[in-house]
Parts: sequence; C-alpha cells; structure tokens
Amino acid sequence: MNNTILIKNALILNLNNFENKKQSLLIKDDLIAEIAETIDEGNVDKIIDAEGKILLPGLINTHTHLSMTLFRGLADDLSLDSWLNDHIWPMEANLNGDYCYIGALLGAVELIKSGTTTFSDMYFYMEDVARAVEDAGIRAVLSYGMIDFGDAERREAEIEENLQLFKSCNGMADGRIKVFFGPHSPYTASEDLLIKVRELADEYNMGIHIHVSETEKEINDSLDERGLRPFEYLEKIGFLGPDVVAAHCVWLSDEEIEIIKKHDVKVSHNPCSNMKLASGIAPVSKLIENDICVSIGTDGASSNNNLDLIEELKTASLLQKVSTLDPKVLTSDEAITMATIKGAEALGLENEIGSIEVGKKADIILIDTNSANMVPDSSSLSSNVIYSANGSNVDTTICNGKILMENKKLTVLDEQEIYDKARKAIKELKEAI
Amino acid sequence: MNNTILIKNALILNLNNFENKKQSLLIKDDLIAEIAETIDEGNVDKIIDAEGKILLPGLINTHTHLSMTLFRGLADDLSLDSWLNDHIWPMEANLNGDYCYIGALLGAVELIKSGTTTFSDMYFYMEDVARAVEDAGIRAVLSYGMIDFGDAERREAEIEENLQLFKSCNGMADGRIKVFFGPHSPYTASEDLLIKVRELADEYNMGIHIHVSETEKEINDSLDERGLRPFEYLEKIGFLGPDVVAAHCVWLSDEEIEIIKKHDVKVSHNPCSNMKLASGIAPVSKLIENDICVSIGTDGASSNNNLDLIEELKTASLLQKVSTLDPKVLTSDEAITMATIKGAEALGLENEIGSIEVGKKADIILIDTNSANMVPDSSSLSSNVIYSANGSNVDTTICNGKILMENKKLTVLDEQEIYDKARKAIKELKEAI
Repeated sequence: MNNTILIKNALILNLNNFENKKQSLLIKDDLIAEIAETIDEGNVDKIIDAEGKILLPGLINTHTHLSMTLFRGLADDLSLDSWLNDHIWPMEANLNGDYCYIGALLGAVELIKSGTTTFSDMYFYMEDVARAVEDAGIRAVLSYGMIDFGDAERREAEIEENLQLFKSCNGMADGRIKVFFGPHSPYTASEDLLIKVRELADEYNMGIHIHVSETEKEINDSLDERGLRPFEYLEKIGFLGPDVVAAHCVWLSDEEIEIIKKHDVKVSHNPCSNMKLASGIAPVSKLIENDICVSIGTDGASSNNNLDLIEELKTASLLQKVSTLDPKVLTSDEAITMATIKGAEALGLENEIGSIEVGKKADIILIDTNSANMVPDSSSLSSNVIYSANGSNVDTTICNGKILMENKKLTVLDEQEIYDKARKAIKELKEAI
Repeated sequence: MNNTILIKNALILNLNNFENKKQSLLIKDDLIAEIAETIDEGNVDKIIDAEGKILLPGLINTHTHLSMTLFRGLADDLSLDSWLNDHIWPMEANLNGDYCYIGALLGAVELIKSGTTTFSDMYFYMEDVARAVEDAGIRAVLSYGMIDFGDAERREAEIEENLQLFKSCNGMADGRIKVFFGPHSPYTASEDLLIKVRELADEYNMGIHIHVSETEKEINDSLDERGLRPFEYLEKIGFLGPDVVAAHCVWLSDEEIEIIKKHDVKVSHNPCSNMKLASGIAPVSKLIENDICVSIGTDGASSNNNLDLIEELKTASLLQKVSTLDPKVLTSDEAITMATIKGAEALGLENEIGSIEVGKKADIILIDTNSANMVPDSSSLSSNVIYSANGSNVDTTICNGKILMENKKLTVLDEQEIYDKARKAIKELKEAI
C-alpha cells in the first residue's frame, strides 16, 4: 500500500525551460510518481492545493557545519584569526555529542523552515549529527573534519573516525544519509592524509568534502611552503577528481580554474561567509562560463549568520554582477540551479534529487507568492524566488515524500523545545570557558 | 484623554550603548512618554508583552520609488540601459495617479511588514503617493522627480509641480508627510534647474533628494561635458548643503568625499540596487571614517527586488567587509544606526524619530528572537538583527503611536485587497504596451 500526496495547481519550476504554468504532481511514498496538468484526486491520501505557490526541488546546501548553529552571533566583525582563536576554538574545546546533536537539530529547524532539504556537513561528533538528521527527516551528506597537522598517529585516528562514521551511518535514515571523507583543508591535513583519503575514497566509493583556497593568506602560505598554489598542489599529489567538493574556492588563478575543470572538481560557493570574514570574492561567473559545477553553501551560522539559502543565492548573484560590473551574469535561472541540480551533482545525488522529475525522490518545497515581498508576480518564477523572496516565504517542505513543514508549521520537530535546549546548551558552553 | 500603550519586557536597542537589558516603554498618543525598568500597568489602554523581542526605532529608508513596487521582477539581469529603455520607461509612460496609489500601497504593506516606518520617495503622481501614506499610517518624505533636460518651459512646469506638492501635502497626515525637492540627477536636471531648486529650498526650508554618481558612465559623461566630476560640479554651482540627500554616491574621488564632508551632504547608500544593476560599490566605510552621515535605502523594488531594509543592511555590511578585505568595518552597530538615527538626520527628522528616547515620536518595531534564524541569542542585539534576521522577523510595527502591525498581522491595511489590485494594475499596464 502506497502513501500518496497530490499537490495541485502548483507553478512547477522546471529547470529545463523555466516556464510558468500550473501543474499537478503526485508523490507515492518517497518518489515523484507523476507530473501532469491534472491528476485524478480519487485515491490519494492527502491533497495540497498549491494555488499561487511555486513548486521547486528541495534546496541543497553543499557546505555547512550544522552544529555550529549554536555559535550564531557568538562573535562578529572580527578578523578570521581572532574569530577562530579567541572565540570559536575555545567554545569547540568543550563540545560533546549532545551539544552537537542539539546544535544540528536547531540548524535542521532553520533548514526546513527556509526550504533546504539536503545539506553537506563537515564537523565533529558526526554520529550525533546523523541522529539529528534522522529525527528531523531531512537528507544529508556527512563528513568528519579530519585534521592531522602532519602527526602520523593523529592521522590514523582521524581516518579511523571518518571510516567508522561511514560504516555506522552511510545509508542510514532510509538512505537519507550518505557519508563522505572530510579532510579539513590542504593546510590542516598533511599530504599523507590527503593521499590516503584519495585511496580510501576510491576503495569505498566515497566522496570528499574539503575547504580549499578560502583566504589570500592560504595561497601565500602554500606558495611559501611548496611553491605551488593549493589546487596545483592537490593536482600534483593526485587528490583531485569528480568526487571532490571544494568549499570556498575564492582565490583561483586561471591555471587553477583549468585544473578544476580538467578534474571535474565540484565547487561550493559560500558568498555570505566569504564576505563577512572578508575572505574575498570567488570568481563564480568565470567558473560557470567554464562549465564547472558550482553549487551553493551557507557555511556555518557562526559566520553567516543564518542558513537561508535563498538569501545566499541573491547575495551570490548580486555579488557577481557588481564584482564583474556586468548585470547579466549569474542570472536568477542560473542561481536556482546552483541550489538544486548543481548541488545534487556536487554530492553525486543527481539521479536522486535536485530536479522535479518522475522517478526522483520527492524532495519538494512550495513558496507562497501571495506575500508582500512577492507581489506582483515577476515575469519569471526564478526572479521572484531569487531576487524578491527569502527563506521565510517557504510555505511547505517535503523530504523523501514526508511532509516536514506545512503552511509554515513544522510537523515533525518541536521547535520550541529545540530552541530552549539550544539556549541552555550555549549558556553552558559559555559558562565552561 | 491620552491613548496609551505599554510595551513591557522589551530588549530595547539603545543606539548609545547597545546594551542588552529588559525595559518597559510607555507610548502616550504619538510620543514615547517613558522608558523605565518597570512602568505601572494600571491606567494604560493596551499592554504589549515584548518578552524575547528586540525593540528598536522604526526603520528609515532614505531612497525609494515606492510606486515602482508594481514593477517588481518586471525585468532582471539586464544592463541599466536596456532595463530602462526597453522595460521601465515604456511601462512608466502609461502610469497614472491610481496606479501610483496602488503601487505605493503595495510598497507600504511591504514596508510595514518588514519594519520600515519612514521612507523618502522620489517619483511621479506624488499626491497619490501621499494618499497611500495617509491611508497606511506610515511616515514619508516625498519629492517629485524633476527632469528638464535643459528645456526652460519644462523646467518651470516641473518646479511648479514640486512646489504644488509642497503646498498640498507638506505636513499632511498628522504631520507624517514632509515634502522635499526632487531634482532627478545632475545629468537629467539642468544647471538652471539645480540653481533654482537651491534658491527655493532655502526660501521654503525644504530638503533636496537627488541621485548622484550612480554609474561610472555618469562620471565619464560629466567629465566629458564639463571637465568636472558630479560633486565638483554641484559644489561649483552652489547646490550642496546639509539639506541635500544624495542617493547612490558609488563613484567618488577622495576630493569628492572632502566636498561631501565640507557641505555636510547626506548620503543614501543603496547596495542591492547598485549590485543588481552592476553600478559599483560605494566607498561607505571610507565615508563613515570621514564622519559623513550615511543612511540606507532600497531604491525601487524594480531593481532590488524587495524593500527589506534588514536584508539591505546585511548586504551593506558584508559588501564593505569584502570590498575592503577588512571584516571589522561596517559593524552591526554601525549598520543599525544607518537605518535609524542616520536616516533621521538625513531627512532632518533627528529631533522627531530615529532613536528610542522620551519625547520622540513613537515609531517603534519589535523583532521576535524566538525564531529559527535568531536562536540562540547573539552576543549583541544588533548582530542578531543585522546578520541573522530579515524583515520577516519583524513582529510589531508602530508609527506615530499607532499600531500598524501586531503579531505579524496588519491592523490598518487590507493586504489581500491590495495584492489583488496591484496584480490587476500591472496586468493592465502590461497590456497597454
């Protein structure tokens, strides 16, 4: 017996033609079963009337540290060094699995409310983050942030921890969780660690999530140490491949863009974090011109300070326009793909999610255009979503065929309980310093 | 007999010390009558419990074209030339007072919902915009956008139109409406027009609202035509003064920054519009370092595409950080002042609005921190507002002592009726082309 949901009268945002017509969509269990102008309402379990609502794929956030939602607004307007050394790292020293669980749940509430159904995370206590993902009903790619600073013993332990995460969590939560390797960056993970990760990723068919070229200092340090820029170094040691998602990619030479393209490395662009920490402006429109897969991420709420992917996409688009002085780059259509099909491709999930097609997982959101900031209807659906809306306009969130929010009310998580627990957690963490 | 509203348990954002403590505030009629830790509840007409809510001055948007909210999403991802010539100007040719009234009402709904209580507008059919302001209960500075292109007859008619607006609307709506002169820009208004406006502004004690130095082309044209940059020219003809609000100010030489400072010209920064139209990045942090009054504006929804001043402030802050590669510039405290006391100073209203002080007008908003994107509470109230929130977190909006929105429900305007009329208006305008 199937569980069926019929969504009718929806303005389905089709990534192939971005046309603007009303359709119906039928969900059977976890899958999109049918899309048509009209679908028989007779035998469905639930009907959602999406009149005036834009239907699009659940958004995909390819770079987060979800548990760090606890650290929202902990420290702002600081240099990266002071922010990390004086504020973030001292707090992280007292983290434990329970804190990371509640931080991830808090982040999950925000993701669901703002229309994100899949996130790719790198942090610690990832089994606890997996528990939060399972409880929240969302989809995730999880990686353990491995750092060895060249220490062989630590390296082995870090790899073991990430492999253990793979063994315990890959495929869990009805297949909604996938595990990647998470070597933190080329400056915190040794060459030996990166080479080992490459071998194991091939062996286990696991993807890799890594920070690369976030700040100018990182480039200069890499040049000083090795005479190579980060992507030149990563290519040289044979690390790169289509299964690598590189977050940030702010400081890239033309040669490095060629390297990224050659190895089909996936990019996760994080404009708000890059702007707030004054890291720099990633050459996204140039990457897109080179047919490189550019997805979007919020980074942690501690450097953003929210997880609103629609806001992130507007910022991405506007930042490219002004930095190139060309208003025609990074259009709203292109921006939408960054958070949908490009995100799915980055995570190796393009056959499962990222577009509204029969046979794909039913990860779907509805955005209510009958809102002060979205009236009148724009000439294009994507314009109305990207330039006018924000996450608060998301009305309904469905992941894997299950309704997680309807009419802006969460159906699975108890948000007030989570807020209270999160406030208690950060209070304890602050007192512990 | 006074009408009194007591707001208790509010986290009042004090612009002098940005401290974080709960207080009560009493409104009597249109004024803030008392601020104290506790205020007697005995004789008040209405009590609002602001537990968990941040109380700040109603936000001030110093550069808008409110009726253009009708043109939201009309055309995007285009060069300024094509956007204006092929899309905006053809639509504007068919505007009339009724369309501008409904466009302004639509904009007013969005302003109220996102916490803006005062806006400074330049457009056509401004008597109709004034009607909308009166009906909506908000506060406005209105100017008629004067363009003569050197035509003497047209110049006289334009000045007459703006003076007529002053005579019919200045001080109307219980004093909530003030009228400025609105010479459109140094490239659309002739030297004669600008000189006449300066004379009349002094005579009538009216402020001046003008676009200056929005695009690089404008600077180059000015240099070609006169051998002077726009602010050099405006200084030379004696146009500048502390009553001039210059919108955009993107392309400024160091000498022009000196000129702005010397004449105490007020700046309205419009980052989203400048980014979306790829106009450029205004040197805001340099202006602030020079103690120049920098306020914030959204520009019209047609080039933004919304009127969310909180989103605009985050964009302003992040854009300064990344463009200077200094994360310490344009802090959240500074950003808040841009939309409050600096906005009030720009409009010559600093004795009436822009801060929470006894004796000022009761223009007040409440932001609910018990929201997914604002938990846990940031270390500073301004950080939580600027970096984490957006306009949808505004819970209550009060202008001139009158509640315009409470618990996110409008109390004066009928939003559905306005949405329907706005949709009808834009449909007719599109059909008329």
